[in-house]
Amino acid sequence: MIKRLGAEFIGTFWLVLGGCGSAVLAANFGGVGNPLGIGLLGVSLAFGLTVLTGAYALGHISGGHFNPAVSFGLWAGGRFAGKDLLPYIVAQVLGAIFAGFVLWQIASGNPEFSVDPNAAGAFASNGYGAHSPGGYSVAAAFLCEVVMTAMFLVIILGATHPRAPAGFAPIAIGLGLTLIHLISIPVTNTSVNPARSTGVGLFAGSQAISQLWLFWLAPILGGLLGGVIYRWFGKD
Amino acid sequence: MIKRLGAEFIGTFWLVLGGCGSAVLAANFGGVGNPLGIGLLGVSLAFGLTVLTGAYALGHISGGHFNPAVSFGLWAGGRFAGKDLLPYIVAQVLGAIFAGFVLWQIASGNPEFSVDPNAAGAFASNGYGAHSPGGYSVAAAFLCEVVMTAMFLVIILGATHPRAPAGFAPIAIGLGLTLIHLISIPVTNTSVNPARSTGVGLFAGSQAISQLWLFWLAPILGGLLGGVIYRWFGKD
Amino acid sequence: MIKRLGAEFIGTFWLVLGGCGSAVLAANFGGVGNPLGIGLLGVSLAFGLTVLTGAYALGHISGGHFNPAVSFGLWAGGRFAGKDLLPYIVAQVLGAIFAGFVLWQIASGNPEFSVDPNAAGAFASNGYGAHSPGGYSVAAAFLCEVVMTAMFLVIILGATHPRAPAGFAPIAIGLGLTLIHLISIPVTNTSVNPARSTGVGLFAGSQAISQLWLFWLAPILGGLLGGVIYRWFGKD
Amino acid sequence: MIKRLGAEFIGTFWLVLGGCGSAVLAANFGGVGNPLGIGLLGVSLAFGLTVLTGAYALGHISGGHFNPAVSFGLWAGGRFAGKDLLPYIVAQVLGAIFAGFVLWQIASGNPEFSVDPNAAGAFASNGYGAHSPGGYSVAAAFLCEVVMTAMFLVIILGATHPRAPAGFAPIAIGLGLTLIHLISIPVTNTSVNPARSTGVGLFAGSQAISQLWLFWLAPILGGLLGGVIYRWFGKD
Repeated sequence: MIKRLGAEFIGTFWLVLGGCGSAVLAANFGGVGNPLGIGLLGVSLAFGLTVLTGAYALGHISGGHFNPAVSFGLWAGGRFAGKDLLPYIVAQVLGAIFAGFVLWQIASGNPEFSVDPNAAGAFASNGYGAHSPGGYSVAAAFLCEVVMTAMFLVIILGATHPRAPAGFAPIAIGLGLTLIHLISIPVTNTSVNPARSTGVGLFAGSQAISQLWLFWLAPILGGLLGGVIYRWFGKD
Repeated sequence: MIKRLGAEFIGTFWLVLGGCGSAVLAANFGGVGNPLGIGLLGVSLAFGLTVLTGAYALGHISGGHFNPAVSFGLWAGGRFAGKDLLPYIVAQVLGAIFAGFVLWQIASGNPEFSVDPNAAGAFASNGYGAHSPGGYSVAAAFLCEVVMTAMFLVIILGATHPRAPAGFAPIAIGLGLTLIHLISIPVTNTSVNPARSTGVGLFAGSQAISQLWLFWLAPILGGLLGGVIYRWFGKD
Repeated sequence: MIKRLGAEFIGTFWLVLGGCGSAVLAANFGGVGNPLGIGLLGVSLAFGLTVLTGAYALGHISGGHFNPAVSFGLWAGGRFAGKDLLPYIVAQVLGAIFAGFVLWQIASGNPEFSVDPNAAGAFASNGYGAHSPGGYSVAAAFLCEVVMTAMFLVIILGATHPRAPAGFAPIAIGLGLTLIHLISIPVTNTSVNPARSTGVGLFAGSQAISQLWLFWLAPILGGLLGGVIYRWFGKD
Repeated sequence: MIKRLGAEFIGTFWLVLGGCGSAVLAANFGGVGNPLGIGLLGVSLAFGLTVLTGAYALGHISGGHFNPAVSFGLWAGGRFAGKDLLPYIVAQVLGAIFAGFVLWQIASGNPEFSVDPNAAGAFASNGYGAHSPGGYSVAAAFLCEVVMTAMFLVIILGATHPRAPAGFAPIAIGLGLTLIHLISIPVTNTSVNPARSTGVGLFAGSQAISQLWLFWLAPILGGLLGGVIYRWFGKD
């Protein structure tokens, strides 16, 4: 079990360091007029590649959840033992917070680095309303996070199904997370992962922390919904 | 059969929500001077990834068509039973319309959201002439949709052929749809899929609806053409 | 043999229509200040995906060369019969020219479409000196095309070697072509493929035609060089 | 052994020519107002694709390290013989320097080509402090290179583990290098590879050379750390 938790810790650390790190360090590089930065497309790709690489490297140890909503959804889909939920989630959240810490150390090596806690998406945090990158309402944010996480679980449960081609699941799941970010960064800065929201939210200031409830509640609800949907398909 | 239709419903839902959602929500994000949005490249990637992920997750249930022109083309290529055409297409169109509805709910959570029915590509709708993103004529639009859908079917039929390496078809097909969008978004906003055109067209206003005929006729003709071409190859 | 040549015709048609089509139709879309177009990155991806998709769909029929320099290189590497070189190359060039014709029909459906034969990269043509997109000399263009094609053949011969993992070669080869374009579009608009240069060059005007010699000579030399290099490795 | 060293020479040549070549030749193409260049996203993709293609083509010959820090990390992880370290590293550095030489020949075919040795990232060199693209401190640069290389080795050791799906490792490893660049180009221009830093640094001028120590020390430390971490996981 300790190795499974270690794999979840490192995988979630990588998800947050890579995904949020690309957003904080590289998204806007170059600036107005001659943008060289990776933009929303590059950040979307980075998030997906953290999961693709983490799942190939560590998936055979822990299953490669790296996300409490995924652990809940796999439980709802009948693929994960309920008794393992709590230790997995603790490991994921600790890995995410450690990533937030390391990212802060790197980012603050730039003399111009600062975090405005009132800015939407500060330190890659998730938000709604005034803290949504595109100014989306709490209702739209909630709906978006539920639907995106539900579809993420459908992809995960389907691509790892015994009838799906073996070995390709990390590609489908990782690029599925890229796709989810391509759609929804403007709405909530895209969470679908309570650990990811927590890992940077704690460093982003009180506004991000006060909105964390949605990024625990909606992804877990979506994860459960996806698990239930796919369970219906899975019955042969 | 109900599970196959459920898989087509969800897969087409995902194709339209993901592909058109990325276009509506994220393509232009950031705006003039410092564009952070995903642009045509990101939208192309998103459309392809909906199919890549949907085919890995649901392809082993329904075959993963998610597109009436694909169902017609597979029938022409001798891989799909004619009696299943109608139920598949109904499920696809219903999934696409549901996606249009959900996308509208999310998008309208932004106070600045509006749809100008006279603008080319409004709400990610397809169009020709004055409603082509680049102002392409109806003849160019028709030719482009026929050729692109025909090549899409050649890719689908070839990559799922028993002599092609097993398991890779969703990558080839999904990235094939990305490629088709990289080429043809400026011409018609890229359909090659009557369900996708219908799913957002119904919400985009009367102009988009009045042009829907082309995005049923040309992709289905192209799909049939691709099926016939590959059938010639397939004869050993 | 007729089916193998048909597959080479269609595959090279797709390479030129998709790669050059993305460049002509979509690279610059949106224009100054708010560029939405796919740029050099999107064109690079499109070229690679034509080969990735074509190789999965048609590779099991013809081997999936789609390029005279590849056919020469495979011959030099001991994987292709010399007597098949001429028919393969004829089929490839005809497919490329047909793609140039279809692309012209689509592109000219835009009232603003025009081709300035004196502009570098006109109608996605290849060039050097005044016709290099970045103004590179004929020597730099020649060196670049030789090295890029040689490495392309090393990738092709290595990824299709019996000791390489089976089924992945189209991914390695297709994304290898993407990589080659990411490097060298500014130098020559990237050929590494005499058929591709010819297919659009004939429509781009006398300047492009007068420079075609380099885009036959250098890629074929590079292909032969790559074949010889890998043959040395291949000897166990 | 000579073929293994030849494969390392060519693979590292390709890594530096492709990755640094895309940065030098294509990153900024088009310029202010209408950027067509591939930017940081395209350069990140190029670096990753050099490894993806090189590993499929040459990995079955030499293991596909192409990087002294990877050779050290594989040794620390118990997968590579210590007596082969020195010859591998010599072959890698020679291949990298040859790539720097060829890239210089191509780049200098552009009459506007020049290298300002005081500019950050000159000729794609790595740097910290005043020579960091984003102005990051030496401490941030060191931490970033250590962490990124350690995670690179975790990906390499995990994706090539017997329990990971066979054949996918070059995808995970190549796209892992893409991800690392998406995160860290602004910090150090991303090395994680002493050969890559040396290959272009020798051509970039005295400033780049004076900072080379960090890009040997930090990646090798990170490689060893990753090897040790994964060795803990690998014990069943």
